[in-house]
Amino acid sequence: MLNYKKYKRFETIKFKERTWPDNEITKAPTWCSVDLRDGNQALINPMTVDEKIEFFKLLVKLGFKEIEVGFPSASQIEYDFLRRLVEEKHIPDDVIVQVLTQARPHLIERTFEALKDVKKAIVHIYNSTSVLQRDVVFNMGKDKIKEIAIEGTKLVKEYAKEFDGEILLEYSPESFTGTEVEYAVEICDAVLDTWGATSENKVIINLPSTVQMDTPNVYADQIEWMCKNFKDRDRVIVSVHPHNDRGTGVADAELALLAGADRVEGTLFGNGERTGNVDILTIAYNMFSHGVNPELNLENVDEIIEVYERCVKIPVHVRHPYAGNLVFTAFSGSHQDAINKGMKKYQERHDNIWQVPYLPIDPSDLGREYEALVRINSQSGKGGIAFVMDHCYGFKIPKTMQKEFADVIQNISEGKGEVSPAEVMNAFEKEYLNLEEPFKLVKCAISDISDYAGDEDTKVNVSIVHNGNEKELEGIGNGPIDAFKAALAGSSLINIKIIDYTEHALSTGSEAKAAAYVYMERNDIGSKTFGVGVDSNITRASIKSMISAINRLYKN
Amino acid sequence: MLNYKKYKRFETIKFKERTWPDNEITKAPTWCSVDLRDGNQALINPMTVDEKIEFFKLLVKLGFKEIEVGFPSASQIEYDFLRRLVEEKHIPDDVIVQVLTQARPHLIERTFEALKDVKKAIVHIYNSTSVLQRDVVFNMGKDKIKEIAIEGTKLVKEYAKEFDGEILLEYSPESFTGTEVEYAVEICDAVLDTWGATSENKVIINLPSTVQMDTPNVYADQIEWMCKNFKDRDRVIVSVHPHNDRGTGVADAELALLAGADRVEGTLFGNGERTGNVDILTIAYNMFSHGVNPELNLENVDEIIEVYERCVKIPVHVRHPYAGNLVFTAFSGSHQDAINKGMKKYQERHDNIWQVPYLPIDPSDLGREYEALVRINSQSGKGGIAFVMDHCYGFKIPKTMQKEFADVIQNISEGKGEVSPAEVMNAFEKEYLNLEEPFKLVKCAISDISDYAGDEDTKVNVSIVHNGNEKELEGIGNGPIDAFKAALAGSSLINIKIIDYTEHALSTGSEAKAAAYVYMERNDIGSKTFGVGVDSNITRASIKSMISAINRLYKN
Repeated sequence: MLNYKKYKRFETIKFKERTWPDNEITKAPTWCSVDLRDGNQALINPMTVDEKIEFFKLLVKLGFKEIEVGFPSASQIEYDFLRRLVEEKHIPDDVIVQVLTQARPHLIERTFEALKDVKKAIVHIYNSTSVLQRDVVFNMGKDKIKEIAIEGTKLVKEYAKEFDGEILLEYSPESFTGTEVEYAVEICDAVLDTWGATSENKVIINLPSTVQMDTPNVYADQIEWMCKNFKDRDRVIVSVHPHNDRGTGVADAELALLAGADRVEGTLFGNGERTGNVDILTIAYNMFSHGVNPELNLENVDEIIEVYERCVKIPVHVRHPYAGNLVFTAFSGSHQDAINKGMKKYQERHDNIWQVPYLPIDPSDLGREYEALVRINSQSGKGGIAFVMDHCYGFKIPKTMQKEFADVIQNISEGKGEVSPAEVMNAFEKEYLNLEEPFKLVKCAISDISDYAGDEDTKVNVSIVHNGNEKELEGIGNGPIDAFKAALAGSSLINIKIIDYTEHALSTGSEAKAAAYVYMERNDIGSKTFGVGVDSNITRASIKSMISAINRLYKN
Repeated sequence: MLNYKKYKRFETIKFKERTWPDNEITKAPTWCSVDLRDGNQALINPMTVDEKIEFFKLLVKLGFKEIEVGFPSASQIEYDFLRRLVEEKHIPDDVIVQVLTQARPHLIERTFEALKDVKKAIVHIYNSTSVLQRDVVFNMGKDKIKEIAIEGTKLVKEYAKEFDGEILLEYSPESFTGTEVEYAVEICDAVLDTWGATSENKVIINLPSTVQMDTPNVYADQIEWMCKNFKDRDRVIVSVHPHNDRGTGVADAELALLAGADRVEGTLFGNGERTGNVDILTIAYNMFSHGVNPELNLENVDEIIEVYERCVKIPVHVRHPYAGNLVFTAFSGSHQDAINKGMKKYQERHDNIWQVPYLPIDPSDLGREYEALVRINSQSGKGGIAFVMDHCYGFKIPKTMQKEFADVIQNISEGKGEVSPAEVMNAFEKEYLNLEEPFKLVKCAISDISDYAGDEDTKVNVSIVHNGNEKELEGIGNGPIDAFKAALAGSSLINIKIIDYTEHALSTGSEAKAAAYVYMERNDIGSKTFGVGVDSNITRASIKSMISAINRLYKN
């Protein structure tokens, strides 16, 4: 038994005045990617400069306007990377690069060296402010920790004055979630005063959940409290930077947006230290699914995954929201059935408002195919199998026939696990199409003998082989099926009646074929089955469907 | 650009009277594992009966008291599995098995057949109640949908009467998050009335977030609203069943607990349809990290992972909270430094209250080693390298020496990526230990010449080989280092002074060795370096450290 008494919850504010639970997210925040810094630093093998360049280009393509590119004063690779971005002109005019640095003179000097010729940059300084880190790591009181932040701000301000481009300041009270809010706002206000922030010259105050320490509502309370307690909220861009230690990074970001945050720092697919940073893509797709413009170009998730996995060398999990391989897939019969019906209604409604059960968004919006929506295993039912037959092969299996065929597939799947669409189709062919035992159709001539007066207007001449013996039969009826049935009545071997019949054009394939389904009963013993026939000639398709049903009824 | 206008948020309640944001999670809910049903049905290859038996045993070992074992009336495998559980007596007396079924006569009959000889079971019926599914899938009004639930309840009640064991009812208004709360409570109250629920004979009302549709605060509002609007809250066990479409399954469950839920249905590592069910392990570890008894036996996460990955055949992601391979790992220098200091303080304090920066819980509580805590890449700094040298090899590198050695390691890591502890140690040996160029120590005799009166009490006789020439030197001093230095002064080749010196016993290894560190300056050109010596004899260790430093100062 685990010794849970070893742990204590960090007591933070009681904030009954909160208003965030009544809010709604109605617009995208400013997104800042920290993939190339916080994400990269947590990799077993950090990206090479070439990989970073490629990743940076992806971020630009996705529409990020603020991109943290590293800690150039701490590592030669990050320095070199920033210089390449500048010298090879990879930074578009509307993209601001952000650099992290500790607030020490030689590091700041080196940081500004790395920024040479950059038009606009965010210089991001931080120091740790939590109760725990003040005690354990720095062994300093509140005043000394505040002094570090103030001194750092002064230094950046000095260098910024001499710098040719425009410099924005970002300050993070690192380990904010473990800091008393009263102290956090005091230190942030000191930074804002030192910089001389105004509503025209705002400073980014980034309030990280460096380590997630509580349920997401507590973080939201902390953020709303801060927003309401800055000396002047107007001179602050409130940024959040959630990590994911408790598996609630996305919730932290979303509730923080409700609580007033303007900006979110995170990464693609949540790469980052330990359990990762918050996944910006998930937040953005969540907004999208509510009809809010995410202000990112997210229409090709597979391209994002491809570049990400190659550079980061960590796979995207199959159940990762929106992006995982299995997330638009339904195996369960009832889900498949509902998706099947929902998709049909969606197509019929023509209002272009997406509402399909079990699919929060249309997979095709992310560049995903409908083919993967429904996959068949032993848990699947008739709805899923009908969906596969329809969406992959164009067969609209009649509702009454679906159970008969689903039982065939369930037998297969209970033996072997997943059944692919091709295997479903294989089984369909084997069960229904082109059956030649015990009866083989050798010839079938159909003639219209209508004088447009009587009812019986079709004559059928068929040759059927049974046990090596060929039999010639002739029948007349009010259409090919009726005539064929009449011909069969001439054989002592076959005694059937037709219960139901449907036919439709097959939508796939180069030549327009038709599929015919007949539901037939054997009169002597009362057994029933479906038969299916496919042919480019609709008359022949129906004859074939009858042979199919007969062969199913009379197989020993 | 994605067409976000295609989506609309489902408008649910406004509930300003909420109280949940003021609550705290102070005890574990009833956990119900749905791994073997909701988890299993979403697998490409569902588990075999043998795998299910193994998984069931794991769940029992972890302490689950309620386990959903399948949908036995829908699949032969699930029927067979339940029969094996019963016949092979795998179900402990304090564990209740739960079976899902649709409320149709032949399915319920088959379900009770499967339950034969079970002492206590939960029969779980459901039907979909959302606005969307009523319209698109069932094409039924509210009354008809309610009738399905009532009829199902009656049927289960009838069969339960005839059944030998005890039957609890669970009812799920499926797709609850897309259902009007007023209608959901109406249908649930109808089920409760039909069953004859009382505070002694409670019914489980499970309110699934079948598809996540909003931020987690909205789900919490829905749950609290339901809790406050049941005709009689006392006769209800309020259960939640969050999925993870928006990446906020854990937050949904946690905020629902704040909002009054008694019970959580979920899976290990969040396996389940699409993006998965909520991950019960993460919620439980989150509680644990707050000093709340999770009432599950979670002390060996690696064993859980092993069985899970083998049966489910989906890997646990490297950044999965608490369980992923990288989640207790720090690559960043400042994090490593803080962990290093935090661990030291934790050991010194002896209060057994875990407070270490960047580590929400002690990895050893989950059976994880400290070795993996700190891994070295180009983003790491001196703190991490010092941690590795200390925790893996017992070398407590002096603070002043850490930068010198960290530069050596950063050079390696910028070239190749991650550097393993063994490679760090290799580099340490190559840089500091057993250096023989340009000076090789051939012999060193140290004698105590103390008469316990004068200061100078140690004589050293050394043979040193330099460029193939052996040199004999003798020195006297107030200790071996001083005497050795005096001897070196007799050589025209070496001209140094000692700035600092420390020595400590090496904690690892079978024989207690000592490590000596000397900080030395070359008088002629002013360059400085550290030298390190290791020997079982502490005097010899210090002589070796001096040779190490001399060789570093005089290598061409």
